[in-house]
Amino acid sequence: MFVTPREGILDPQGRAVEHSLKSLGFELVSGVRVGKYIVLELATESPAQARQLAEQMCEQLLANTVIEDYRIRVEGE
Amino acid sequence: MFVTPREGILDPQGRAVEHSLKSLGFELVSGVRVGKYIVLELATESPAQARQLAEQMCEQLLANTVIEDYRIRVEGE
Repeated sequence: MFVTPREGILDPQGRAVEHSLKSLGFELVSGVRVGKYIVLELATESPAQARQLAEQMCEQLLANTVIEDYRIRVEGE
Repeated sequence: MFVTPREGILDPQGRAVEHSLKSLGFELVSGVRVGKYIVLELATESPAQARQLAEQMCEQLLANTVIEDYRIRVEGE
């Protein structure tokens, strides 16, 4: 799963990283956003079931849906 | 960029997330790894140049290569 700050929401971590990158001489960089990347295994019988569980996990724990978006990629789909 | 704990390196954040997921009833989950997902724009003239800069950024700032691996995806490549 990919959990990222929603469009239009301030991303202080992204700002900090952008500032640091520019200080290091990476002047061409802009629009830095920092999110979470979560990999896990699910002992389900089908990719569809895995996706359904992954959605529930994001909604209930992994993403704060007020300020974050999430995206799910299921291997074997 | 995707920055993840190296294989074999303890991932306390992943452990904590796995524990929480199981507490919530997601019993089918295992092997949780938590990493960072960094999106940014680079005003370069080519995707190849963007990749080269992204690699330097990971090595110098974004990843701690002693304990973390990184992977780069460049749009337009």
